[in-house]
Amino acid sequence: MEIQALTFDVFGTVVDWRSSVAREAEALLAPKGHALDWGDFADGWRVRYAPAMAKVSRGERPFVILDDLHRENLVELLAERGVAGLSDVEIDELNLAWHRLDPWPDALEGLARLRRRFILATLSNGNVRLMVDMARRAGLPWDVILGAEVARSYKPQPEAYDAAARMLRLAPAECLMVAAHPSDLAAAAERGFRTAYVARPLEYGPERPARRPDPGTFDYQVESFIELAEALGA
Amino acid sequence: MEIQALTFDVFGTVVDWRSSVAREAEALLAPKGHALDWGDFADGWRVRYAPAMAKVSRGERPFVILDDLHRENLVELLAERGVAGLSDVEIDELNLAWHRLDPWPDALEGLARLRRRFILATLSNGNVRLMVDMARRAGLPWDVILGAEVARSYKPQPEAYDAAARMLRLAPAECLMVAAHPSDLAAAAERGFRTAYVARPLEYGPERPARRPDPGTFDYQVESFIELAEALGA
Repeated sequence: MEIQALTFDVFGTVVDWRSSVAREAEALLAPKGHALDWGDFADGWRVRYAPAMAKVSRGERPFVILDDLHRENLVELLAERGVAGLSDVEIDELNLAWHRLDPWPDALEGLARLRRRFILATLSNGNVRLMVDMARRAGLPWDVILGAEVARSYKPQPEAYDAAARMLRLAPAECLMVAAHPSDLAAAAERGFRTAYVARPLEYGPERPARRPDPGTFDYQVESFIELAEALGA
Repeated sequence: MEIQALTFDVFGTVVDWRSSVAREAEALLAPKGHALDWGDFADGWRVRYAPAMAKVSRGERPFVILDDLHRENLVELLAERGVAGLSDVEIDELNLAWHRLDPWPDALEGLARLRRRFILATLSNGNVRLMVDMARRAGLPWDVILGAEVARSYKPQPEAYDAAARMLRLAPAECLMVAAHPSDLAAAAERGFRTAYVARPLEYGPERPARRPDPGTFDYQVESFIELAEALGA
């Protein structure tokens, strides 16, 4: 079975959420007199992400898209950090920070090469409109936006992966999951996907380098999308 | 409310299904000694499309994607036209004719212009993989593939339109449905979409020019995507 499509985790794998969210938060809040550690603000937002999705995945609430989870988490975070007095419109605007994330430096060149040979799909927990806005702003050349909203299941639930392969009309083994997160890749492998780990050591900031998996843990382990293109002959 | 996204019907509106399917059928069947009127063969395939979807829409069978409906219809059509002896693999290959449709001459230039200003989404009854293959082959610059498979409802069912607006996080009035078919536009308008009729007089072949709606029936009525871009200031 040859690989036909690459399915991408996006936050952290394709785009640098931490420095982008920090930038967006500072741009909106600093002029209002708030002086925070903006990287830490981004971390505080991100850390609420997995527990919020887990409530959906455990069936404790109906499926809601990530934009809505992000907003609930933002309201909590603002209270925690002592940021008061924002209007609903300002909170909405800050929530869209996640639509304006910058790609890692190798992403555009690597994706352009990979797309010559493979179907490129998002398989992110981000909702459709978030992915559309991000792609239009950054120039990400997706062929199709799949993932949580389309599957109505958040990764690492099996249905998130299964729905992507089904809509691509491919056997799971014809799909290569690309992610910087071993847990995502392990869940994809469980559903029969092939796996490519891309190291993004700066995802959590310069002081918390991500730990690399042992060699041989995944089918491919590379340092960039360009190296992935080389490895796949694209 | 300003228009933010254009949602496109695809078969007949963006691509010329009739001459493309005729070409694909001839390429596969003529070398096997079949001499048919290939335009008429395409028509015979297309005419089975609406009744097959209607069975799904009436709940007489669970949702199945268009590739599967096309294949069932193809098996009937081959029998009707006296084409026997094809293998399952050959029938599958011919069924993919719908993945290899050529755009109308103005489509690529018009879409490139429209995309500078608007989100471009498919809102087709074609399934996701069909849309992906067609777009990759023809160079159609979709931002996102929506439509029947994602909504699990075929147009003109309300949910097909509602799901598209919902995933785009737009009010229906911020979406402009673009189609060559008055019935599709009328159903979209019923859900609150704005409407653009694009004349495709050759859709059913040179001898059966499509009848144009009366002036003023839809919000925009144009002769090409380029004219639509002009009308929308894109």
